Amino acid sequence: MKAYEIVSPDGVDALKLSDRPTPTPDHGEVLVRVHASSINYRDLLTIEDPVARNLPYPRIPNSDCAGEVIGVGPGVTSVQAGDRVAGCFFQRWVDGPVTPDAMASALGGAIDGVLAEEVVLNENGVVRIPDHMSYQQAATLPCAALTAWHALVEKGQLKAGETVLLLGTGGVSIFALQIAAMHGAQAIVTSSSDAKLERARAMGAWQMVNYRETPDWEKRVHDLTNGQGVDHVVEVGGAGTLEKSIASVRVGGHIALIGVLTGGTINPTLLMRNSIRLHGIYVGSHAMFKSMNRAFSAAELEPVIDQEFPFDGAREAFHNMRQAGHFGKLVISFDS
Amino acid sequence: MKAYEIVSPDGVDALKLSDRPTPTPDHGEVLVRVHASSINYRDLLTIEDPVARNLPYPRIPNSDCAGEVIGVGPGVTSVQAGDRVAGCFFQRWVDGPVTPDAMASALGGAIDGVLAEEVVLNENGVVRIPDHMSYQQAATLPCAALTAWHALVEKGQLKAGETVLLLGTGGVSIFALQIAAMHGAQAIVTSSSDAKLERARAMGAWQMVNYRETPDWEKRVHDLTNGQGVDHVVEVGGAGTLEKSIASVRVGGHIALIGVLTGGTINPTLLMRNSIRLHGIYVGSHAMFKSMNRAFSAAELEPVIDQEFPFDGAREAFHNMRQAGHFGKLVISFDS
Amino acid sequence: MKAYEIVSPDGVDALKLSDRPTPTPDHGEVLVRVHASSINYRDLLTIEDPVARNLPYPRIPNSDCAGEVIGVGPGVTSVQAGDRVAGCFFQRWVDGPVTPDAMASALGGAIDGVLAEEVVLNENGVVRIPDHMSYQQAATLPCAALTAWHALVEKGQLKAGETVLLLGTGGVSIFALQIAAMHGAQAIVTSSSDAKLERARAMGAWQMVNYRETPDWEKRVHDLTNGQGVDHVVEVGGAGTLEKSIASVRVGGHIALIGVLTGGTINPTLLMRNSIRLHGIYVGSHAMFKSMNRAFSAAELEPVIDQEFPFDGAREAFHNMRQAGHFGKLVISFDS
Amino acid sequence: MKAYEIVSPDGVDALKLSDRPTPTPDHGEVLVRVHASSINYRDLLTIEDPVARNLPYPRIPNSDCAGEVIGVGPGVTSVQAGDRVAGCFFQRWVDGPVTPDAMASALGGAIDGVLAEEVVLNENGVVRIPDHMSYQQAATLPCAALTAWHALVEKGQLKAGETVLLLGTGGVSIFALQIAAMHGAQAIVTSSSDAKLERARAMGAWQMVNYRETPDWEKRVHDLTNGQGVDHVVEVGGAGTLEKSIASVRVGGHIALIGVLTGGTINPTLLMRNSIRLHGIYVGSHAMFKSMNRAFSAAELEPVIDQEFPFDGAREAFHNMRQAGHFGKLVISFDS
Repeated sequence: MKAYEIVSPDGVDALKLSDRPTPTPDHGEVLVRVHASSINYRDLLTIEDPVARNLPYPRIPNSDCAGEVIGVGPGVTSVQAGDRVAGCFFQRWVDGPVTPDAMASALGGAIDGVLAEEVVLNENGVVRIPDHMSYQQAATLPCAALTAWHALVEKGQLKAGETVLLLGTGGVSIFALQIAAMHGAQAIVTSSSDAKLERARAMGAWQMVNYRETPDWEKRVHDLTNGQGVDHVVEVGGAGTLEKSIASVRVGGHIALIGVLTGGTINPTLLMRNSIRLHGIYVGSHAMFKSMNRAFSAAELEPVIDQEFPFDGAREAFHNMRQAGHFGKLVISFDS
Repeated sequence: MKAYEIVSPDGVDALKLSDRPTPTPDHGEVLVRVHASSINYRDLLTIEDPVARNLPYPRIPNSDCAGEVIGVGPGVTSVQAGDRVAGCFFQRWVDGPVTPDAMASALGGAIDGVLAEEVVLNENGVVRIPDHMSYQQAATLPCAALTAWHALVEKGQLKAGETVLLLGTGGVSIFALQIAAMHGAQAIVTSSSDAKLERARAMGAWQMVNYRETPDWEKRVHDLTNGQGVDHVVEVGGAGTLEKSIASVRVGGHIALIGVLTGGTINPTLLMRNSIRLHGIYVGSHAMFKSMNRAFSAAELEPVIDQEFPFDGAREAFHNMRQAGHFGKLVISFDS
Repeated sequence: MKAYEIVSPDGVDALKLSDRPTPTPDHGEVLVRVHASSINYRDLLTIEDPVARNLPYPRIPNSDCAGEVIGVGPGVTSVQAGDRVAGCFFQRWVDGPVTPDAMASALGGAIDGVLAEEVVLNENGVVRIPDHMSYQQAATLPCAALTAWHALVEKGQLKAGETVLLLGTGGVSIFALQIAAMHGAQAIVTSSSDAKLERARAMGAWQMVNYRETPDWEKRVHDLTNGQGVDHVVEVGGAGTLEKSIASVRVGGHIALIGVLTGGTINPTLLMRNSIRLHGIYVGSHAMFKSMNRAFSAAELEPVIDQEFPFDGAREAFHNMRQAGHFGKLVISFDS
Repeated sequence: MKAYEIVSPDGVDALKLSDRPTPTPDHGEVLVRVHASSINYRDLLTIEDPVARNLPYPRIPNSDCAGEVIGVGPGVTSVQAGDRVAGCFFQRWVDGPVTPDAMASALGGAIDGVLAEEVVLNENGVVRIPDHMSYQQAATLPCAALTAWHALVEKGQLKAGETVLLLGTGGVSIFALQIAAMHGAQAIVTSSSDAKLERARAMGAWQMVNYRETPDWEKRVHDLTNGQGVDHVVEVGGAGTLEKSIASVRVGGHIALIGVLTGGTINPTLLMRNSIRLHGIYVGSHAMFKSMNRAFSAAELEPVIDQEFPFDGAREAFHNMRQAGHFGKLVISFDS
């Protein structure tokens, strides 16, 4: 079976496509034939700077996959061959709060990832995917969708009528838009592109703000919310957005802090005076993933794929990720 | 101005229609011209047995109203003449958990109710109604809708994909159906009437169970939920339903206990072994009412009115309530 | 190694003491040399009526044990030989809410118990015991202490100054007393024995009520709490207590429903009108057990052992349990 | 009656001591004869820079007071003359989450403060003080103690065995130490003074860190907690501490962000990766104050007063506050 490997610090074009033997599932493990893998910004960073992450060579990149179970190891009871599954970013975060041990089980980082035709995953490190989704669609769920779900539903306890601020139209934000709509909440979406804002509106966004035309968009957010500010911000970040997000949220409101890119100075006094609740969100647990999939099945939610790349074209997919500007997710399809 | 009064224990037909002077709002109070009042089963019980409730005569019945503010007392800052408002069942439950003092402020029980052309309410005992609703629609909200919202959203923290069992098609259940749909949840509705079940389906019910045809409906509920049971039950009760509700909920599930009619023996062992969470729900607070109205405005929710009665025909409305069998709410309209 | 077995429905005296081979820990399992086992009322019921529980013969009884790890199976990373541990009642409830699968892993019921010199348990089915405790003390923790902790701390979110009503002086109630005191809460303890009440006072009880002398003890509870009622009831039950517990709790208060003996009719109207929160509590998770042990270590808590029995005298211990009337826990010590 | 007034931007020595008529309580208000007022750092900042806060002249400073009710306005039912009370920092935050309206009712800021012999407060803006406390002790509660309670108990849901990091020995930190001890939690206290650390130990601190001798105290915190980090940080702040606090908290841990002085750059990536929960804490509600006082009464907690000043010496008290270095609270006693 074929697998991409990080074998040097030389970036995307230095990714090696290797032949490897089919791995064998051990006790409590399952063997999955991967049909699709989606890309997160983190995957690009990992490929471009494996040294900063102390990664050994070779390391298989990527953390998101969907595929078919084609074998199970001893002791496996909850999964069987033929099951259509997605992998969990954290292979050892079953339920409850995250633990250091769970954090040491991140696919495509602490351990080998899933940009390979066959992978071995933990029995509790896979979840059944919604029947109505293709493998390509389901491959978008493990990081982006689950992060949005964790932020808004598990931590944010989102309810109908609440307002949600979403920054940009990347994978997490678009899932957050769909999850907000699914719960009767009202999403304000920002983008520098009117065309993307128009797509967001068509998907149920309540208000759109072009942050290029409205650089002080935090004021616009207050105008749109009767001077109150929003209930939730999904802060996927970028340079300088956190300060504005803090200024956009209402007294007693909630900021889900997600972005690996988020940085800069923040003003703790405003956090304090406005009684703001800020949660660092790092993907989610197996139990959350199951809850989310149940909701997505009920809603027959369709993940938004910006572009699909063939397995052979994986390097191009990462280059594309670097340019940002996508709407939804980039997916590498092994079936193409 | 005219008002109905309970002046004896002789029931609905003994209600007296009196002339009273327009009341004057004191400090922190507002004067409301009532346009509509909806009926709850509790109102009927109050009229039929005022002695059990230690009510003084005369007592104005009913707790649900909507109308226009036509005057404000000294110190009122958050409400002004011309505002379209509904009254809060508890006149002194602003926010946070309920208190004994709040419980002593129930309209149409502890204090005079709202089946009167003009009533004085606390500034914090009214909420603005959604713009898209008529007074008749808004008059259905204070007890039935807020009870359903409190049960599912505030206590139940309902999320998309969860399953909700609703008993019958009375006011609380129909609002619960709409609230469930609004949050992407999946409602199972029971009724003895296929026609009503069909109406429920058209409003978004996921599954329907005719409890006359399926007397052991708790088993049917398990079949519909892959043997798990439902996440939430809104137990509005009737003889013998609680036992079945407990049998219908999943391990770790949630029962909102509402009905004044609920009774009978329950099995604490099952509650314990299945780690069930049971909340007594008694309407809700001013703050919850505001949250709910925001959600209803966003969704442009249309309350379901089974039948409207003119102010002069109020007694008929109560007789109608006794027969049960309605779908949604009974409303007395002062504009007819 | 020796083990007690249920081999018939003939009760305590029919328990068989057998010789068995030392079991072998499989993948993810550990071998524990048991030093002590404590008894819960449930263990007695299991021995006396295995038929009602559909138990196969032979079945080893008891769910509480403490001992030393003397071997580990493949893949075990978090436990090693020499560790002093207690077993978890649910062998497969690691963290998060309870699941049906977890419920099927109860020691001494769904699977073999721990009244044996050597037992195999899951790696995640044991927890390290506090350094300051003997095996005999630690053997009291898995059911009684964890149930009390789950009830008051995990579900009840107990805080200083709150009031807690405890029924009797059995294992759960005495741990609840210690946990309440540890959190600065104020416990009211009931008993039919003034001597036991005096012991409870010495352990930090705030108020004592002799329920034989004060049969309407729910009124006394209101007197003691300025007419408010208590914040929490730990309802370990007995005939007719639930009704009084419901009458004893304050508006918006919390009842943890525990007792396998609890029964009788309850009044749902009071639960509803008083906005009572009732939680079925069924022991607890591995994560809760670890949290509890950390607290018990910090406080150097001393479990209360009513009486110790030698391994050979296990049958006598069960007879003793039937008589009730103990103060704290009954322990079978394998070291005697 | 006499009152201090801010009448210029010229700071502490320019505070004016005026004669004013006794104020009259309006509807829902009470008249309090103040016996003591404690100082918070915020009070000093207000006096030193009233312009930044847009304060009108004259403005009475200070937000913490305790005294006796000597009169009540119309409609007051829950308070009566003779009651011993403390004022609430927010005069209009009764229960539930904070609101913008509540924030506009801060004593000694948005409205006149309490450094006056007689003040009028809202009926819901006072709470009864514990019987065992003097007015001087009770005057320390409204900001410092309630902030610590809100941080650890209401938001932090502190439980026994958890670890708490406290920065320095000012008013909030010392109350947090007492509250932690009251709940069976384990406090790590930092200070630059070994003498103060020794006092903290005597009050129940679990571990002490001299941050002058151990400038990388976040590493010491990890050493003390088996490499895990603490469960809670009460971040009362100073230059550069927030970064270290974030580094001190465990995965999934909690930071209560309080200090008006806190500033500097923070690292959102660490907040995200470690799933940290950060709450801006701004004093607390009337309901929280009542809960806290109940706990303090039960524990007979003794607030720690660093130094008492007579009413005539109020200016000296503020100068003293500027020097920092105190252990507990500074109180101006009107009885001296």
